[in-house]
Amino acid sequence: MAEIVHMIDSEVFLAFSTYATIVILKMMLMSPITSYYRLTKKVFSNLEDTSLVKTSEDRKKLVRVDPDVERVRRCHQNDLENIIPFVVIGLLYALTGPDLSSALLHFRLFVVSRIIHTVAYVMALPQPSRALAWIVGLFTTFSMAYRVLTTALFL
Amino acid sequence: MAEIVHMIDSEVFLAFSTYATIVILKMMLMSPITSYYRLTKKVFSNLEDTSLVKTSEDRKKLVRVDPDVERVRRCHQNDLENIIPFVVIGLLYALTGPDLSSALLHFRLFVVSRIIHTVAYVMALPQPSRALAWIVGLFTTFSMAYRVLTTALFL
Amino acid sequence: MAEIVHMIDSEVFLAFSTYATIVILKMMLMSPITSYYRLTKKVFSNLEDTSLVKTSEDRKKLVRVDPDVERVRRCHQNDLENIIPFVVIGLLYALTGPDLSSALLHFRLFVVSRIIHTVAYVMALPQPSRALAWIVGLFTTFSMAYRVLTTALFL
Repeated sequence: MAEIVHMIDSEVFLAFSTYATIVILKMMLMSPITSYYRLTKKVFSNLEDTSLVKTSEDRKKLVRVDPDVERVRRCHQNDLENIIPFVVIGLLYALTGPDLSSALLHFRLFVVSRIIHTVAYVMALPQPSRALAWIVGLFTTFSMAYRVLTTALFL
Repeated sequence: MAEIVHMIDSEVFLAFSTYATIVILKMMLMSPITSYYRLTKKVFSNLEDTSLVKTSEDRKKLVRVDPDVERVRRCHQNDLENIIPFVVIGLLYALTGPDLSSALLHFRLFVVSRIIHTVAYVMALPQPSRALAWIVGLFTTFSMAYRVLTTALFL
Repeated sequence: MAEIVHMIDSEVFLAFSTYATIVILKMMLMSPITSYYRLTKKVFSNLEDTSLVKTSEDRKKLVRVDPDVERVRRCHQNDLENIIPFVVIGLLYALTGPDLSSALLHFRLFVVSRIIHTVAYVMALPQPSRALAWIVGLFTTFSMAYRVLTTALFL
């Protein structure tokens, strides 16, 4: 990490910026999907939210739990648990000055694995599709963390 | 993103540091608020936590779910889902060297929208107050992501 | 924050990279622990996941909530709420050019407090062990945020 100042101006850093932004946008997309399900299925967490839809039902009955909404929310939670570590470790990894080809491999593998993970989760595809996508993302991040710790270790 | 090294030393980066710290502190504030509600209303998730309060009740009955505590927790969760993407995208955006006035507009709009969102959530203000605050924050982040992708795209 | 470019190439930044990676890996570890509990105790959130284990039971009955799994998940959630703010504030703090000894104190205190927090949570140790570990982590992050705001304030 001796020449970190040059690293931040590199193609590796541009690639990191691109893939990190794409995968964060993918994660953010889960919020509007949740809202869409809540509004179309009329399923809410807060009583005041029921005023967002027209209904003849008792509004208190719209404050309920729905399996489809919960599925999207679990997918979103899994994104938080996996994509944020990728972004943090990936930033530090990009600053260690890896080969561009090696960095691109990590970034692309992670982003593709998380897109597959989301499709497998939301569409409830048979396992182990989602489990494998999750493990690929996990190991990609571990591999970058290994390089950060072996390059920059300072305890 | 050609002169990124100079960008990190700029007023835009100082502004990003300031607003990111403020909005992260706002998010962190939700934890003590949750603890305060748990201790004063005697509502816990773990049996061992009930020893933190004096009570004549059966301690097992204090492990329960309370609507006010859940409301604060949903607000905290929404912060995680929105503020963390802002911080990640905002950091990359600050490194693309935007105009100071344009950057300040994005940062201020986001922070104000999230403070309004929290007040609207915790006080259960009538919709669409909270929905609008959430959408403003979302689009502010999308706008910064657009600049990152158009300035730094490297796939 | 005048000479930030030099700061990013410093021992403080290497120390930040090391401790941030360690504490993010600790957080990521909660995912495999959750999976281990789900597979060995046969407790799932999604019907399709039940195909990952052999069972003579009705598969729908494996979609259930288990107190041990929920405990690990609450610990993971608390990590998200505390470790991510530490990483964001810690990065900005490292760029303000603090003394190495002062920075190491903050980073070590935080990482040790979160490891104690996890042990106290997963093993359900008597309170206030977990509460104290949580507060130490919180105040370490507040202390770094204070330095960022007093050094880099630009509103």
